[in-house]
Amino acid sequence: MKKNLKIALLQTRCGENPQENLKHTLKLAEEAGSQGAKIICTNELFRSQYFCQSEDHKYFDLAEEIPGPSTEAFSAIARKYQAVVIASLFEKRASGLYHNTAVVIDADGSFLGLYRKMHIPDDPLYYEKFYFTPGDVGFKTWQTRYGKIGVLICWDQWYPEAARLTALQGAEILFYPTAIGWHPSEKEKYGRNQHGAWETIQRAHAVANGCYVAAINRVGLERPIGGDGIEFWGQSFVAGTSGQILQKASVDQEEILYAELDMDDVNTTRVHWPFLRDRRIDAYGDIVRRFID
Amino acid sequence: MKKNLKIALLQTRCGENPQENLKHTLKLAEEAGSQGAKIICTNELFRSQYFCQSEDHKYFDLAEEIPGPSTEAFSAIARKYQAVVIASLFEKRASGLYHNTAVVIDADGSFLGLYRKMHIPDDPLYYEKFYFTPGDVGFKTWQTRYGKIGVLICWDQWYPEAARLTALQGAEILFYPTAIGWHPSEKEKYGRNQHGAWETIQRAHAVANGCYVAAINRVGLERPIGGDGIEFWGQSFVAGTSGQILQKASVDQEEILYAELDMDDVNTTRVHWPFLRDRRIDAYGDIVRRFID
Repeated sequence: MKKNLKIALLQTRCGENPQENLKHTLKLAEEAGSQGAKIICTNELFRSQYFCQSEDHKYFDLAEEIPGPSTEAFSAIARKYQAVVIASLFEKRASGLYHNTAVVIDADGSFLGLYRKMHIPDDPLYYEKFYFTPGDVGFKTWQTRYGKIGVLICWDQWYPEAARLTALQGAEILFYPTAIGWHPSEKEKYGRNQHGAWETIQRAHAVANGCYVAAINRVGLERPIGGDGIEFWGQSFVAGTSGQILQKASVDQEEILYAELDMDDVNTTRVHWPFLRDRRIDAYGDIVRRFID
Repeated sequence: MKKNLKIALLQTRCGENPQENLKHTLKLAEEAGSQGAKIICTNELFRSQYFCQSEDHKYFDLAEEIPGPSTEAFSAIARKYQAVVIASLFEKRASGLYHNTAVVIDADGSFLGLYRKMHIPDDPLYYEKFYFTPGDVGFKTWQTRYGKIGVLICWDQWYPEAARLTALQGAEILFYPTAIGWHPSEKEKYGRNQHGAWETIQRAHAVANGCYVAAINRVGLERPIGGDGIEFWGQSFVAGTSGQILQKASVDQEEILYAELDMDDVNTTRVHWPFLRDRRIDAYGDIVRRFID
C-alpha cells in the first residue's frame, strides 16, 4: 500500500494590514485542513508586505514573540485538522534581537520547534541584514506525525550545504517558505533566468538528496516605499525525489497548491541513486573555508 | 570588450576498437581546433566502449600510463591550435592501481595536471568500483591560458560538494566528461526523470557557484557483454552562469558542440547573486559526517 501524504502550500497575496493577512492565511490553512492536507506551509513572512525593501526601524514593531498569537492560532488549526503546520514569522527574541523564523507545529497542535534563517541576504530591496540576526540553531529536521521534515527559508535555498545538512538528519521533505520576485525594470531582460535559477537549484536539492522539495512563494506587486517595488513571482512548486516538478502554482494568482507525495519514493530513490553511499567525506573538509586561495 | 571564449565538447559514438576511437576523437579535436575552439573536452573514457558493464580483468589492459601516448597526441593538437585540451583516460598508475582520470593540457601543449575521479559508482552495469581506485588528489582547479577551469567526472556530477570545492578554488568553468545512459528496459518508465535529474543538478552547480558548466556525454547503444546494454543519452550541454542551457547536443548523433562564453559573466553573476558572501561556514562542519544520526 502506498504511503501517500497530501501537503498544501499557501501561496498568498499580502496586503497592507498584518491582522488581515493573518486572518486570511488562517482561513486558507483551515481550507487546506478541511481538504485533507496533512502538512500545511505558509509563504515567508506572510503576515506583512515584504518590508525589507527599506531599512526602517518602524517595521520591527511587526515582529512577535514565539510562541505567541500566531503560533497559538496555527496550533488550534493543527489540532482541529490533525495537520502539521509550518508558519514563517518575524520573531522578536529580545529587544534588539530579531530573526526570520519558521515554526513547526505537530498534528496534535504541540509546538515542535523553530528554525531561524541561517543565510541572510542584503541586496537592492532585500535589505534583510538590517532586520534579521543570522540563525543560531543550525539546520534542523523534525519527526512529525507524518514524516521527517526540514524547513529552510528563502535565501537558504541557494545553498546546497543547507539542503544537505538538513537531509543528512533524515529529512524526507524540505520546505522553503519564500518571498522572491522580480525588480520590474529587470524582468524583461533577466527575469526568465532569475526564476529559472531559483527553480533549478531547488529541484537539484531534491536530486542530490533523494527527497521532496516544496517551495512556497507569494504573489503580487508590493510597493511599500513606492518606486517600482517587487513583483513576487509566485510559481510555488513541489518537486519529486528526482527533481521533477509535480505541482506548480501560477505566477500571479493566490492559490492553495496541493500535492500527493508517495513517501516510499524517498527510500526507493535513495537506494537506486545511492549518492549518500559514495560521498567523499574524507575530502570535503574545505567546505568550511570562505575561499580556497 | 567582451571576453568571449569558444569551447568545444566532443560527443562521440565509441566503437569496439580503441585505436580507432582515439584516432576519431583526435580528428574531431583537430576539427574543433581549426574552428577556433580554445578549450576542447572529450567525453568520459572515449577510447573504449563502456567496459564497466561487467567485471572482467581483461579490460585493465585498456589502461595507459599518464603521460603516455594519448596525452602526447593531444599535446600536439593543443600546441598546433593553441587550445586547451581536457581528455578523459583510463589511467594505469601502477600494477593493480588504476584510476578514472582526466588530464588537462594547456594551450602550449604542456601537461598542466590531472584529476582522478573522486566519486566512484557501483550500480547495475556501472561496476566502476571494480576498476577505479577513488581519486586521491582531491578537487582541482587549473589556471589555463584561457581561464581557470575545474574538471570533474561523471558520478562526481551528483555531488554539490565536488562542484563547490572546485569553484572555491576559483574555477570559472566546470567540465564534466561523462558516460551515462539508459537501461533500455527502464527507459520508457524512468528515462525522462533520470535524464532530467542529471541535467538539473549540473545546471544547479552553475547556479550555486555562478560559473559555467559543460557536460560531455557519448551516444550510442553499447552491448559489450550482450544483453540490453546501455543506451547513452548524449545531450551534452553547456549551462550559463544562471544555470540556463546555452547549447545542447542531440540524443543520438555524434557532434562537436560549440559554445561561446562571455567570461565576464562569471564575475557579474557572482556580484549580483552574492552567494559566496553569505555562506555559513561556521555551520557547515557536519558536511564531513556520513549521516547525522
